[in-house]
Amino acid sequence: MRDVCVIGLGLIGGSLLRAAAAVGRTTWGATTSEMDADAASRAGYDVTTDVGAALRRAAEAEALVVLAVPLTATNEVLKQVAEHAPHCLLTDVTSVKGPVGAAVRRIVPWARYVGGHPMAGTAESGWTAGDAALFGGAAWVVCVEEDTDLTVWTDVARLVLDLGAHVVPLPALSHDETVARISHLPHLLAAVLATIGAQGGPLAMTLAAGSYTDGTRVAGTDPELVRAMTEGNREALLPILDEALGRLGATRGSLASTGGLAATINAGHAGAQALADNRDLPRSGVRVSLTAPDAREGLISLGERGGRITSFDGDTAVGEVT
Amino acid sequence: MRDVCVIGLGLIGGSLLRAAAAVGRTTWGATTSEMDADAASRAGYDVTTDVGAALRRAAEAEALVVLAVPLTATNEVLKQVAEHAPHCLLTDVTSVKGPVGAAVRRIVPWARYVGGHPMAGTAESGWTAGDAALFGGAAWVVCVEEDTDLTVWTDVARLVLDLGAHVVPLPALSHDETVARISHLPHLLAAVLATIGAQGGPLAMTLAAGSYTDGTRVAGTDPELVRAMTEGNREALLPILDEALGRLGATRGSLASTGGLAATINAGHAGAQALADNRDLPRSGVRVSLTAPDAREGLISLGERGGRITSFDGDTAVGEVT
Repeated sequence: MRDVCVIGLGLIGGSLLRAAAAVGRTTWGATTSEMDADAASRAGYDVTTDVGAALRRAAEAEALVVLAVPLTATNEVLKQVAEHAPHCLLTDVTSVKGPVGAAVRRIVPWARYVGGHPMAGTAESGWTAGDAALFGGAAWVVCVEEDTDLTVWTDVARLVLDLGAHVVPLPALSHDETVARISHLPHLLAAVLATIGAQGGPLAMTLAAGSYTDGTRVAGTDPELVRAMTEGNREALLPILDEALGRLGATRGSLASTGGLAATINAGHAGAQALADNRDLPRSGVRVSLTAPDAREGLISLGERGGRITSFDGDTAVGEVT
Repeated sequence: MRDVCVIGLGLIGGSLLRAAAAVGRTTWGATTSEMDADAASRAGYDVTTDVGAALRRAAEAEALVVLAVPLTATNEVLKQVAEHAPHCLLTDVTSVKGPVGAAVRRIVPWARYVGGHPMAGTAESGWTAGDAALFGGAAWVVCVEEDTDLTVWTDVARLVLDLGAHVVPLPALSHDETVARISHLPHLLAAVLATIGAQGGPLAMTLAAGSYTDGTRVAGTDPELVRAMTEGNREALLPILDEALGRLGATRGSLASTGGLAATINAGHAGAQALADNRDLPRSGVRVSLTAPDAREGLISLGERGGRITSFDGDTAVGEVT
């Protein structure tokens, strides 16, 4: 089991450090937040505010370095990686994968990097919000490209499984397109709805019930986090916003002309059913040998069909797909 | 305490019959659903499938008739009211008030009608989904216009308070504009989001987390109910859809040009805060004498400021406003 060095000890990094320590990994962490470092140290974790020292230790120990800093701090931390651990095993947990991969290739070209993204979180932030159980059962994307080093990929995937999550192997591009669809668009629609609702003043807030409360909940997320993930995924998000504008415009046109909204509402109902069905469908087992020549294609195919890897059997990834 | 005759025994009508009976009102109901009628009778309620008989009894007893049928069935039931109880005290619980008010004036011009709408519900439907506690603490709009008969209005408002809800006095137009904003737009945005998400296939469903689940929840509502309320509120909903298209288009334009989404995201965060604040703000007491010459204006002013009436003190409505 590889040692784990976590840079950034907010909600995700702090949860990761706790969960990795809990399964017996040797772990240490670094954060520039004195407050988070103090709190983590008092809780018995090996934590410093000297990011360079933590990275040098990772280089010596051949540890897996996990960048768990906000997307906007990524470039700065990658410069420190380039200085202190340029050849390290590296992953990250940020919500866009194409742009971060490009930054890694530019700033730390010799790092053995495989990107990651846990589909887990809460509206809270900071070390104190962390929880070793945060990742239990969650989907965690671990990127696979045509040239991915499967040794590094396996190191990252094994850590993810140790944390209680399931591995979804995906190219960065598929990841970014999918999160634009199911995470970044929901955040922007919630923001638009919350703005329009609030323009109705206290009366609108008094009459607001379940549909409004559900539809605006994520608008309460820290705006800096939402900006970072949506602005950072510009290329994949633009076509999804166009799709939303097209569908909402068609809805408006239909109401204005025929007065009917069946197409919009029935499609939405079928979509809600697809989510419910996906959770209930029987799953069949899938095995991908990581030593096979087409291992990368096998992993990507599994991920793109909505499958997950739940364990390893020697050099074989064992998963399930609907 | 007036007797209560409920026509339609689905989620809302069934809950209303139970809650009114629980506070000691004499109640009876009618439904064309044999299944709902059987279930309600077995539970000990005085229920028939003969709508005409229930209405004739209401006319004789000077009971308050509550129409709790789907919006699409309103005209048909109003014709029965015109035949069997043309002068009755009448209210309803449908989600649009302008169009229903117009239908009442056309079909049952002599009915003493005051429209209503409880801001409560679940995704379930039918008698078995009902619950006497459904309305506890909910806002319930009871319409006030310039020519409203305040005696009838008070009868409806007293029933609403008996059911555990709070009364929000509003003109039909204000109601319809506000529900377009905080109920009908959320339903249509959820439908658009659920459609776009499902187009991402099983992969999108596997990666979907809280923001998607929250944002699509109401897309699971019975499509017929959603169609009825949105299509039935066409006039008020069109400008709100235009506002949503304008804001989403500006979001798209900003991302495409400057790459920045601060305006959208910060406004959404402020909107989410406005909802949270509205629940926590201190409230001050308000009293409106129903015998004063400006009683209607006083009630409307209270409602349009987001206030609620929580009790009666003789002929005075007692409420609170932030």
